[in-house]
Amino acid sequence: MSINGVDTKTLFATIDAVKGQPELAKFQFRASNRWINGTHNRTSINGYYGAGQEFTRAADHEYDADHPPVLTGSDQGPTPVEFLLHALAACLTSGLANIAAARGIALTEVTSTVEGDIDLRGILGLDPEVRNGFQNIRVDFAIRGDGSPEQMQDLVARSRARSAVFDVLTNGVPVTVTAKAI
Amino acid sequence: MSINGVDTKTLFATIDAVKGQPELAKFQFRASNRWINGTHNRTSINGYYGAGQEFTRAADHEYDADHPPVLTGSDQGPTPVEFLLHALAACLTSGLANIAAARGIALTEVTSTVEGDIDLRGILGLDPEVRNGFQNIRVDFAIRGDGSPEQMQDLVARSRARSAVFDVLTNGVPVTVTAKAI
Repeated sequence: MSINGVDTKTLFATIDAVKGQPELAKFQFRASNRWINGTHNRTSINGYYGAGQEFTRAADHEYDADHPPVLTGSDQGPTPVEFLLHALAACLTSGLANIAAARGIALTEVTSTVEGDIDLRGILGLDPEVRNGFQNIRVDFAIRGDGSPEQMQDLVARSRARSAVFDVLTNGVPVTVTAKAI
Repeated sequence: MSINGVDTKTLFATIDAVKGQPELAKFQFRASNRWINGTHNRTSINGYYGAGQEFTRAADHEYDADHPPVLTGSDQGPTPVEFLLHALAACLTSGLANIAAARGIALTEVTSTVEGDIDLRGILGLDPEVRNGFQNIRVDFAIRGDGSPEQMQDLVARSRARSAVFDVLTNGVPVTVTAKAI
């Protein structure tokens, strides 16, 4: 049975497989970045480990990031923080489609907008009281489908409760950074 | 004077301007997402507010996200969590180039790799003790330029201390999510 483009049989089989072999749930995702010029740099995303094996995609996914001219960049791509907003919307939306499928709710349209407020006095080093990152983020969903308004609200609540990106952004994660001169 | 492709005169002028008018530092970044099918969806990034005005880029930046087949997706783009790794590498690298320029250190090569470990028993709802998001993230830089090894280490340390994405990922940020059925 497929609903919302989600093969629920495979989804449930995946959950059952992981239940029996928890080590299948260990994944490692990766990205590699190369500086180009000024604040412009490019990330390549491809291989990852999971379900006990290495995976390689058919081609690398490449993404440019930069600062806009008002922040002394050359606008060759979005700012790094905008990719956080993308990741959040994408994660909540993927989860929502899966959860709706599992509940038999057919969706016809899901859109969301994400806004993040930031005070650049933090990263510019002008005020130690101002944090470097976003001060808050808001996500607003509009959902069309055959569920009731309450069911739609509940889909979003459940997706949020199971979202990897929402967890990382709201709770934080330990990050270690090393560097070597070459 | 331009070093590393960074116009340091403009950079310092920007910092001075914000010092005099702190309201110029208030920025809002945005993204909008549309569900396509299954776990596949697409984000559009363009306009933002900052330095007291609205900005629109010449064209939208569009990014697909999806799950891989092993997670019942169709691999139409990286997973949402991989974009977090991209954002982190990009932010640290942009900052590093700016800081090196401000210190008069010319860079010739900056690469980084980012790895994030995640146990999918969290998002699959199989173990309430397992978090949804990454359990840890590692970033490894390799830097070539005319600074000493100690100076290169210090550039990375300073970039980390001033990184918007590093702050958000390590400390978390309040996120509100609303939904309406349409």
